[in-house]
This record gives sequence, structure tokens and C-alpha cells, in this order.
Amino acid sequence: MPLLDVCFSPELIHLYDLKGRVVVVVDILRATSSMVTGLAHGLEKIIPVSTLAECQQFASKGYLTAAERDGKKAEDFDLGNSPFSYMEDFVKGKTLAMTTTNGTHAIRLSLAADKVVVGAFLNVSSVAAYLVEQQKDVLVVCAGWKGKFNLEDTLFAGALAHKLQGLFESENDATLAAYHLYETAKSDLPLYLSKASHVQRLKNLNITKDITFCLQQDVYDIVPVLEGDYLVPYTPESVKSVV
Amino acid sequence: MPLLDVCFSPELIHLYDLKGRVVVVVDILRATSSMVTGLAHGLEKIIPVSTLAECQQFASKGYLTAAERDGKKAEDFDLGNSPFSYMEDFVKGKTLAMTTTNGTHAIRLSLAADKVVVGAFLNVSSVAAYLVEQQKDVLVVCAGWKGKFNLEDTLFAGALAHKLQGLFESENDATLAAYHLYETAKSDLPLYLSKASHVQRLKNLNITKDITFCLQQDVYDIVPVLEGDYLVPYTPESVKSVV
Repeated sequence: MPLLDVCFSPELIHLYDLKGRVVVVVDILRATSSMVTGLAHGLEKIIPVSTLAECQQFASKGYLTAAERDGKKAEDFDLGNSPFSYMEDFVKGKTLAMTTTNGTHAIRLSLAADKVVVGAFLNVSSVAAYLVEQQKDVLVVCAGWKGKFNLEDTLFAGALAHKLQGLFESENDATLAAYHLYETAKSDLPLYLSKASHVQRLKNLNITKDITFCLQQDVYDIVPVLEGDYLVPYTPESVKSVV
Repeated sequence: MPLLDVCFSPELIHLYDLKGRVVVVVDILRATSSMVTGLAHGLEKIIPVSTLAECQQFASKGYLTAAERDGKKAEDFDLGNSPFSYMEDFVKGKTLAMTTTNGTHAIRLSLAADKVVVGAFLNVSSVAAYLVEQQKDVLVVCAGWKGKFNLEDTLFAGALAHKLQGLFESENDATLAAYHLYETAKSDLPLYLSKASHVQRLKNLNITKDITFCLQQDVYDIVPVLEGDYLVPYTPESVKSVV
């Protein structure tokens, strides 16, 4: 049975051997939720980049650009980090260069893995279906907040552990913790997360609507998969056959 | 209200400003449990050291020595990491130099704090009383396992958060997670932890008796407090007045 493990911070990635694994990068509020939303709404591909300067260079090449720092849209970019802006018509068929405080950084740190995909509550069942398809060891990498543990990414890992129960070996401490926290929180995720640090931070920025959206499960059926430099949408066969 | 926060791995300590804080180092299985046991049984003081070589140098100075690596007693030292060996008569009045895989390392990384103390389930109420006495911001540093998150140290942090509820500001993600995990686990800690990685690892070494002992709460009333290079036992006033 393949292994399911969870890394609670990008600062701990060096403790894991990524070779042969699928890494699922998660940054629920809001980078990976926005990525899933954009690719589900017709965005063709996303280039995750680490720095604002790097992102700006793509603007001069005619790409769409998205940049967020400390929860706010950085100036002089087309998009910020609100999933709603990723639903707009003008994203269709475009390529987007994107940088965020935590999420895109976590993707760059995961490049040694066999496959890197992007997860959110919005596509959690499709991520689970993809992982079942792959039959490889899995590491969920929580983007966290500036290196620290965060609850919403951990709860995503827990939701995934619930979906993969019996199919993946999950008896390691981080996965057990995520599993049990999700069990406590699942009946009302928004309420449970109302005390979480990043939720408080975002509430101060008046984006309750974004938070509510990002905590919905299975709104989209695509999994963003990293191919070369680009995240592209993929729909697992088992999900396709259902639709 | 002072802050209670939790750092899930020594690898994340650099993300926290330790100045002005009390750090509680915890390594339930078994370093900090053994330290508490030894000092409660008449050991005079403990020098936490990082390396086997450093520890050996203390042997040549006539100190007692304790060394554990990968869960086993290292050769040529007086003690390993089993709390029962710390109850023996020959420890009374002695100074012990001690090195363990995770616990003593975490202590060394915490030296920038105002105060460094050692916590275990065995003295959790005394640790809580000490923190109430101090009225400073607190960081619980979980020793983890070779840098990774572990459940038993997290549950200690959760138990402490329960005891300090209403007295310390605990609404940060790591403390909330520890608090909720402890709530799930508290009715039967040994059962809950039976799947934890390090418990499995220690069971393979046939030390179930040690695990059972280390999961008992409030067996001892002393708090090991770092003074200069030495951990010495301290009993909080509020605990003294009860006894």
C-alpha cells in the first residue's frame, strides 16, 4: 500500500525524500484554491514563480500576471489572490505567471518529486482520485504561513486522509493528527477555522466571501498537475467516467 | 494576557523570537520525562549536552553520564533514556551530563529564551503553575523525531493549553491544533498514541513499561529549570502551598 504523509511547513521539506513521490501542495487561503478555480474556468496554464521581479518579467512577455504579498494584491499585476478574479472571462485561454507569499514557494521547493499537483477543498475528491490512479507514495506539503504551521492546510490534508482511508498507509504522526483534526472540524469548517490565525488576518482584509468560497468541497473536478514549468488541468479517469 | 504558542519541531525555532519568553522543551518519549524523574528522585542537576563526545568528556570529570541514540542507550554511558533508571539510589546528589536524539538538542536551540524549562506529562500541572507564576509569553518547543512533527509532544502542548485556558492567549493555529488533539486523545492517551510512530518504534525495543510510565500525569511536582548550564529542580509556590 502506498504511503500518505504530511509535511506541515515548507521549512521541513528537506526532511523528506521526494524522489518517487507525488507531492500535493496546498495553500487553501488562497493560492491553490485560486489556481484550481482559474484552471477550471478556462485558464490554459499557470507558471508558479517565486519572486515579484520574476513575475513582472512575464508581464513584459505578454502573459497575465498574479501576485499576492501578505494577503494583498501586489501593485502592477493583473490579478491578486482572490478566487473570484480567476473566474473572469479574460482569463480564458491565457497563461498566468503567479507568485504568492507561501503557495508558489512551496511548489518550487517540491520540484524533486516525481509529480507535483495542487490541492484545495474545491477539488479534494479529484485529488484523491488522481492519487489512487498514480499508486505512488504521497506527501502533502502544507504551505503554512511564512514557515509556520497553519490549520486550514492541515485540515485539507485530513480531508484527503479520510478519502484515502484503507487505500493508503496513513499511520504516521502528521497524517494521524491531520485526520483527527479534520474529524473534529468537518461538521462546520468555517466555524472551526474562525479562530485560525490566517482567517483572522484575511477577515481584517474584508474577504470573508473568499474564505467561504475556499472552504467548499468538490466544486471543480480538475487537478492542476505540474508539467515542466506549467500547471495544467487534468481530470482523473474515474472522475471523468462519473461526469 | 501572555501568549501561549507551540513550535512543532526544533527545525522551526528560528521562526520565533525567543527573547522575553519562557520556552518549555518537551520530549515525552523519553528525554524530558527522564529528566523530571531524575530530579524528582534526588539527582542534583543535569547538564544537557548535544553530542556523545561532549557527554563523554564529562565522564572523565567524574560526572554521571546518560546517552541515547535512536531510542537505545549508547554504549559506555551510565544511563540511557529509560525513566526507571533515573529512580535508582545511585543518582542521588549527583550531577548528570545527558545527551539524547532530540530532547537535549531542542534545549540547546532554546537558549535565547528568558527561561528554559522542561515539561512532561509527569509534571504538567507544575509546569502550568510555573508559567502562571512567570507571566511571560510561552513557547512550547516539541522535540519531535529528527525534526519531524510527533504526536506525544503535541499532546503535552495540548494538555498544557487546557490547564492554561483563560489565563494565556492561545488562539494561534499550533496551540489550537494541540488543544483539539488533546481533547480527542485525553480519555485514553496510551490507546490514542498506540499508532504514533515513535510509540511503534519504542514498542519494537520492548519498552512498553517506559511508555506507560511517561504518559502518567502529575506524578512529580518539580519543574526542571535551566540555570546557567544546569537544569535544577524548582517547585512553584502554588504547588508547594498545596503540598
